[in-house]
Amino acid sequence: MIRNVKIISTGNYLPERVVTATELDEKMGLAPGWCEKKSGCVERRFASEHETSPFMGARAVERALEKAGLKFSDCDALISTSGTPAQPIPCTAALIQEAMGELNSAIPSFDINATCLSFVAGLETMSYLVEAGKYNRVILVSSERASVGLNFNEKESASLMGDGAVAVIIEKTPEGEGSNIISSRFETYSEGAHWAEIRGAGSNIHPIRGNGKEDDFYFSMQGPKIFKMASKLMLPFCDRALKESGLTFKDMNLVIPHQASRMAMGLIQKKLQLSDDQFYTFVENHGNQVSASIPTGVHNAITEGKIKRGDKVMLLGTGAGFSIGALVFTY
Amino acid sequence: MIRNVKIISTGNYLPERVVTATELDEKMGLAPGWCEKKSGCVERRFASEHETSPFMGARAVERALEKAGLKFSDCDALISTSGTPAQPIPCTAALIQEAMGELNSAIPSFDINATCLSFVAGLETMSYLVEAGKYNRVILVSSERASVGLNFNEKESASLMGDGAVAVIIEKTPEGEGSNIISSRFETYSEGAHWAEIRGAGSNIHPIRGNGKEDDFYFSMQGPKIFKMASKLMLPFCDRALKESGLTFKDMNLVIPHQASRMAMGLIQKKLQLSDDQFYTFVENHGNQVSASIPTGVHNAITEGKIKRGDKVMLLGTGAGFSIGALVFTY
Repeated sequence: MIRNVKIISTGNYLPERVVTATELDEKMGLAPGWCEKKSGCVERRFASEHETSPFMGARAVERALEKAGLKFSDCDALISTSGTPAQPIPCTAALIQEAMGELNSAIPSFDINATCLSFVAGLETMSYLVEAGKYNRVILVSSERASVGLNFNEKESASLMGDGAVAVIIEKTPEGEGSNIISSRFETYSEGAHWAEIRGAGSNIHPIRGNGKEDDFYFSMQGPKIFKMASKLMLPFCDRALKESGLTFKDMNLVIPHQASRMAMGLIQKKLQLSDDQFYTFVENHGNQVSASIPTGVHNAITEGKIKRGDKVMLLGTGAGFSIGALVFTY
Repeated sequence: MIRNVKIISTGNYLPERVVTATELDEKMGLAPGWCEKKSGCVERRFASEHETSPFMGARAVERALEKAGLKFSDCDALISTSGTPAQPIPCTAALIQEAMGELNSAIPSFDINATCLSFVAGLETMSYLVEAGKYNRVILVSSERASVGLNFNEKESASLMGDGAVAVIIEKTPEGEGSNIISSRFETYSEGAHWAEIRGAGSNIHPIRGNGKEDDFYFSMQGPKIFKMASKLMLPFCDRALKESGLTFKDMNLVIPHQASRMAMGLIQKKLQLSDDQFYTFVENHGNQVSASIPTGVHNAITEGKIKRGDKVMLLGTGAGFSIGALVFTY
């Protein structure tokens, strides 16, 4: 079912500190070149002390508002589509609203979380509320400070992740314009619930009362299992997702994949037979930014002119859960 | 805008261990009777080691499915509307799906989090997707293991909270039936973002890398500030919420408030001039179960015959954020 919803503005925030693959090679005692070769990430940003997830999210929202010439009060909801919480309580959206200094806005603020696919799930979900007229204009914001939870004894994931925030503002498409969300599909296979996780610090393993070991509080990833599942599911899942859209990959001006490692993306691009022009990778200078990866792709593609109004775009990714999701829209 | 959505089944799970107010008086070295008098809670449940939030959530979902004569595969989405995460990664819905043993269901599973109001926000949000036909049948599940994060040096909150899980299944209302969601309203005032919180264990204060003190990892609440804000907002907020529904409090067969303390609820009942029959409290034997409080009210009211088909019901509450929310439905 097509929703007449339009992306009207985006904004991002990248932490100031650049961390190179070379720096990580040294930090983890690896042979020069290991991190770049393994992850495909040459440099990424790591947040400093003051660059909390709500801080970064707030700056991204402000930039998206400024670009659109809007005030926060022109918007009807603020949805954090971040995959990791800033605090266990309250929700991250309330903390982002606070970090914007909008203390008495009354604007509904809550979180939609599907880990790496949070933005896709949030855009899908909230587009129905915009289409129905519940909210005229909604801000989605993914903000991730992955660096704080990296396990530098697990070089595969530690070489891969980067921090940052992106905000995307959507509204009902004005009469006579063609922007829309054509279709979306989401599937969760909890067989893979522990293939990418932080076991500790929620209610399962309390930081003080739980019997957690240090590693429980860091991110851990079983890359080969995720990749095997993703490889198995990718083609049939894309068939199902495309069938709902009535389109084929040939119709897509751009596919924006979740920025897993360059190797994983390369194999998926090959499997889907997409040209380099159609398949957008930017892991080189961002790393994998958890939920912020896919909206970073949207922001950069718009900013760099890779997509223009009327173009068909597919967002596509896998995430912890294990989930796989796709959303097709006309920009 | 009215959504033709019907609550078709509910199920709950309460941990086996009953904790009385007397037991908490002793644990915290308080005068006999203090906890019961302050919170209004005579007894509540505390989860044991094996009763994790995903475990309790899974049992609640299974009971709701069984009551409806449905299998999990008859449902189109599983939404965790819990206010606290079981793990920082992945989302709680995926862990609940796993705890059900539904490892390869492919059923979309993600979280909607507005702390204590997560169920209200989730029911509001997902009802638009059911109304639009995106999903025919959706499971919402709130599962809370608050006990693990209680600060027993903060007697006001420690005397109040209880654990448990509730699942609610919604679907498109069949032709000719009158069940619907009439209206819903949600407002967030981040002035109160830190009035009820767990500061530590998210990315703001990492359990190991952050500079957290022990108290940062426990729940803390500034009850008087919350109560002052709730008192100020309650009447004008309810006016706005009721205006959207076209109804008055006289039309409500039952108002199910978030189970804050008995004193706070008593004052709100008085302010709204609701009779005891209209205003449903069950804090006495459940405590405040965070996001699971309001759906526990829905489950118990249905089970105990307090509401019948055709009745008008209002869900109403405040939550960390600070947020205030209401949803009016025909059962």
